[in-house]
Parts: sequence; structure tokens; C-alpha cells
Amino acid sequence: MRRIQIAVIGYNKDRCTDEARKAAYEVGSEIARAGAVLVCGGLGGVMEEACRGAKDNNGLTVGIIPEDDFSYANKYCDIIVCSTIGFARDFIVAGSADGIIAVGGGVGTLTEMTVGYMMKKPMVAVKGSGGTADEYGGRYLDERKRVEIMTAASPKEAVRMILERIKENAGLGHDNLPDTA
Amino acid sequence: MRRIQIAVIGYNKDRCTDEARKAAYEVGSEIARAGAVLVCGGLGGVMEEACRGAKDNNGLTVGIIPEDDFSYANKYCDIIVCSTIGFARDFIVAGSADGIIAVGGGVGTLTEMTVGYMMKKPMVAVKGSGGTADEYGGRYLDERKRVEIMTAASPKEAVRMILERIKENAGLGHDNLPDTA
Amino acid sequence: MRRIQIAVIGYNKDRCTDEARKAAYEVGSEIARAGAVLVCGGLGGVMEEACRGAKDNNGLTVGIIPEDDFSYANKYCDIIVCSTIGFARDFIVAGSADGIIAVGGGVGTLTEMTVGYMMKKPMVAVKGSGGTADEYGGRYLDERKRVEIMTAASPKEAVRMILERIKENAGLGHDNLPDTA
Amino acid sequence: MRRIQIAVIGYNKDRCTDEARKAAYEVGSEIARAGAVLVCGGLGGVMEEACRGAKDNNGLTVGIIPEDDFSYANKYCDIIVCSTIGFARDFIVAGSADGIIAVGGGVGTLTEMTVGYMMKKPMVAVKGSGGTADEYGGRYLDERKRVEIMTAASPKEAVRMILERIKENAGLGHDNLPDTA
Repeated sequence: MRRIQIAVIGYNKDRCTDEARKAAYEVGSEIARAGAVLVCGGLGGVMEEACRGAKDNNGLTVGIIPEDDFSYANKYCDIIVCSTIGFARDFIVAGSADGIIAVGGGVGTLTEMTVGYMMKKPMVAVKGSGGTADEYGGRYLDERKRVEIMTAASPKEAVRMILERIKENAGLGHDNLPDTA
Repeated sequence: MRRIQIAVIGYNKDRCTDEARKAAYEVGSEIARAGAVLVCGGLGGVMEEACRGAKDNNGLTVGIIPEDDFSYANKYCDIIVCSTIGFARDFIVAGSADGIIAVGGGVGTLTEMTVGYMMKKPMVAVKGSGGTADEYGGRYLDERKRVEIMTAASPKEAVRMILERIKENAGLGHDNLPDTA
Repeated sequence: MRRIQIAVIGYNKDRCTDEARKAAYEVGSEIARAGAVLVCGGLGGVMEEACRGAKDNNGLTVGIIPEDDFSYANKYCDIIVCSTIGFARDFIVAGSADGIIAVGGGVGTLTEMTVGYMMKKPMVAVKGSGGTADEYGGRYLDERKRVEIMTAASPKEAVRMILERIKENAGLGHDNLPDTA
Repeated sequence: MRRIQIAVIGYNKDRCTDEARKAAYEVGSEIARAGAVLVCGGLGGVMEEACRGAKDNNGLTVGIIPEDDFSYANKYCDIIVCSTIGFARDFIVAGSADGIIAVGGGVGTLTEMTVGYMMKKPMVAVKGSGGTADEYGGRYLDERKRVEIMTAASPKEAVRMILERIKENAGLGHDNLPDTA
């Protein structure tokens, strides 16, 4: 019954660039057009722009914030999850994703990537979006080579790639992935 | 932009009674009819029946589960939040609610009530639903008397009461409650 | 190799009474004299007095605080665990105890009791210490009757009772309880 | 009153090398000789060897484990913190350190490094210990350059460097660092 949930991770407000903002908006738009649910950390920068893109395309957005007060979430979140556990909520963002798309980002984005990697989530970095996405696209995060962080040439490509990989996993009987027929 | 989020707490599958199941279904139905989002712990018993009631009435449901694997959630969850933090997720369920409705319940329900009480969330217990709801309806959870756990005569009344209290709080400028006009 | 770990839960600074403070100091002293480790939430009131009592008797004290900054802990903590996850740390305090002693307390103490109850930890409430301890001593927290919250006539008695119960559990092969010979 | 707390992070049992094991034992030994408390994730591999080294030198060891059951901790932990929150406990390990030493390690070690970096904890990687330590020694984890991960030529040097940096921070009035006179 549930739909595919895609997490968008990246810069918060303080370090976000115009390029990353633009890419995030496009990623959010494409996620919505694909009928998937957008999951994110619920704050500013990439998170806000991705949510805005999704809302402009009739998508559904979930913001999982560190705080215990709804007012910290950006205004494009349909559902606000007040985790109350601070930045350990990065585990929940990654854990609640069928796949993860990175747009720019600093160390918090890297935290989320490490969690996604540990959980073997499909991950795609948008090329040219800066920061963590550009640094880690095409790489593994340790010697185990659990899952490669793929690189996409554009936001549209990123969403296409992540959906493809998620559907492959579903075909392989991973987890209880939603029916993607 | 967001809608009111109401948490439904109560028995898990192992102890749920027919009365609690029926009440939970009604509570979920009423929440959906009111246009609010249903938040819960995502598992069985009261959680599942509340979600089912909401889905039968075109509602939106969020299940915040202890595990890191979507498959633990009941099938009536639209959004699944895999908290990965075990039963400490009770803090997230209560923290993500504008108001809380209790239907029956054991000690886990009491944990959620204590968190809601600490955060001064409006709470209503459905009379006659058994367990924690009947035990704590009409009471305060400590000497501070932060917020009384109200008692409702029926599921319908419970949803009406919680919405009324949430709207009062909005009028008082609490948090960033959604526009309830 | 590890020693028995006993959690002391109860009033924080804002509501603590002189009676509870005195009882907490005695509980901490007895825990130290018994050679057990004192675990607590690391803040003021009962937590601070219990730590002070333990330190005055050459004990070892662990404070598990909600914050990410050592400075929030009381000065009688030997080990400070900065949980960074807010009050969800109540799960860690209860989870890290072989047994739990309650002295007075408000709703946060009740949260910890519910977690201890769910995990079937031996628990003792000190009679006459007020609040949650007096309210719940002698009771079960739900219909499952997982573990009774015992009542002790004095701090000394509370420590004696909890050690006895912990040793019984060890004899029954529960968990990996430390050698108590 | 508390002593300096140094976290040792690195390989778990499944990937640990002999070199890393040896380095970890030395790091733990040096931490104990310096009179500091050793904090770690409480499991096998580097964590276990560091604890063993500390115990062989009369040190004090704290293991913060993901699980809710003491039996998962290695037998050289004096204090076991059962976090109950799964691998989100990486936030607690990093958060509970005045400084962090990395020995080898995979993606979980990187998670802990990202948290330490975000919190501006002094961090040192032991050169030649493999994995994450060798990969990230001498680097910053994002464009903010919050804190450099220093590189030490040996375990002994690592402990010397981390203590020096911690004491510098104390001189600068950071947090409530223990008296290091």
C-alpha cells in the first residue's frame, strides 16, 4: 500500500549554494512526478528546496527534524516528524528511505550517507552539486564495498537511477518494497 | 501547509481486545474524516486498526516503527518511518503529535503518555477501551499537573475533544499549529 | 568483570524535597558500600544526591545526560555519558541497570519505570520518598504483570532488596549478570 | 571531579586486522597510563583490544553498546551502557568523548568521526592502522573545516596528541573540561 520513499540529503541553509538549491528543487520535482514520497531532514537549504519542488508537483513530503517542536521544519513539509533526539535523527532519515539522493552537502550529509551505506540503501549523488555529493559520488565508504554511491549527471537522471535500483531490489525480494508495477 | 497530526496509541497485537480494536477503527475513521493526519507506532492491534479506519476514509497514515526494516509496519501505513532506535521511538510518536488519543494499551502506551505529558500535548483516553486508557483517563501523571488526560465517552467524542483542544492551543499561539480555520 | 549497575531515578532539581534528597543520598551511599556502580540521569535533585552519597563512600557513578555537553552533569558523576538524544535517554538509564531504585520523582521517573518494567528489570520504590515512588510502589504497570515494583521501608532496605533480586536473576541465568559470589 | 574521557573507535570483530588489534591494545594501555577513562562502542575488534589494554594497565573502561542486553559487550568493559537505540549509539560514543582516537575502521568508524567532527571534538588517527583511520587522517570532513583529523605515528603519540589538544581546549574554556593540572 505504501509508496516508494526517497530521501534527499544535502546542504542545510547555512552552506547551501544556488546550484545545489536548483538541483534540489529539480530532484524534489522529479520524485513527485514519479509518484514517490520525499523524505528529508525537514530543515532548510537542500531539504527545503527539494520539498518545495515536490509540492509544486503535487508530491507528498516528510520532514524528520532533530527538534521536539514543529516550528523548526520548513514550510513545505506535509508530515513533520519531531524526532526529539537531535542529529541522531540522521539514522531515521536514512533508515526511512528505499533510496537516497545526495545534493551537495557537508558533514551531516556524510553521516546520513554512512548510515545508508551500512544499511545497503541505493544511493545516488548529483554530479556538480558540490560538497559531499561530489566528493563521494562513484565511491564506496569502506573496504566492505557494501553499496556504491552512484553518480548521476542531472537531477532527473538521479531520480531515474534510484528508482531503477529500488525496483531491482524489489525484484530480488529485498525488504518489503512496495509494488512498483 | 501541514495538517493537524493526531497520534493514536494503545494495545499492540498481543493484548488487543475486540472492544479496543473497534474503538481504534472508529478513532482512525474520525481522524481521517476531520482531515487530520494519523500518526502511530506503526505496528499491530490498536495501531493497525486505527490506520485501517483512516484508510477506509481516505485518510493519511504515518507509522513510526522501532525497527530499521519497512516490513515490520502494518499494511495500512502510507508513510513508514523506520526509526531504527527501538522502543525509544515512543518519544517520536508522542513528539510528532499535536494531540494524542489513547485506546486501551499496556505499558508502552503509558510510556507514550508520559512523554506526551512532559511535552504538554493534549491527550484524550477513550472510556471503556480498557488498559492504560481507562486507568489514566481523568488523571494527571505527576504533581506538576502539566496537562490532564481527558476522558471521552466515544471514539467520535475523543476526536472532537482533541481537535477542540488543539485549536485552543493554536489560538494561544502554541508552537506552530497549522491553520485550523 | 563488570560490577552490578543500579540505577537511581527520581526528582530532578525543580521538584526535589528534603526527604527525597536525604533518601537519595542514603541510597547512593548504600550502593557504593555494596560495591555496585551507581547509574543515573546525571542531573540534579535525587540524581545529584545519590551520586554525592556514592562518592562520599568511594563509589563509582555514571550520569547519562540528555545533552551533548558535559557541563550539564552534576559534579558527582565520575563518568558522564552525553547521550545527545534528549529525554529519550530515559531508555538508556533504565536499559543500563541491573536493577532500579526510585526515590520520589515526577513524570520522567515514571517514563523510566515504564521502560524498566518493559525490560523486566527488578525495581524498588523507597516508601515515603513521595511522588512517583510512593504512587507506584507495590504495583504493576499493566495487565501483563511483568514485574512488580517492590516497596522498601528505607534506603538501606531498598538496596538490600534490589541486590537480592538481581542475584536471584543471576542464579536463574538471566542476561549476563556479573558474578555476585 | 570527572576525568578526561577518550573514545577509541575502529574495526569491529568482523574486519579487524592484527595490526589494528595491536595498535588498539597500545592505545588503550596509554589511555589508562595517562589516567583517562576509555570510552568505546563496547563490542569486539578494536573496541575489545583497547579495553583489554586499558584493563591490563588498571584503567577504567566504558562500553556503549547498541543493544539492550549487557551480554553483547566485550568482557573488558567496566561500565556497560546499554543504549537500546541500535547503531544511532555512535552519536553517544562521540558525544561522550573529550577526544577521539581512530584505529583502522570501516563505515561505522566514519559515522563516529562525522559526529565528532560536527561536535568539534579533537580527533587523531593512528597511521598505518588501516581503513578509515588511514583514509581520513590529515583531512577535514567538509568545507567548513571545523576540526582537522590529526595523524599520529604511533598509539603512544596518538594519546599524547589527543591529551595535548584536550588540554588546550580546557585552557580556552571549552565545555567543562576536567581539571588537567
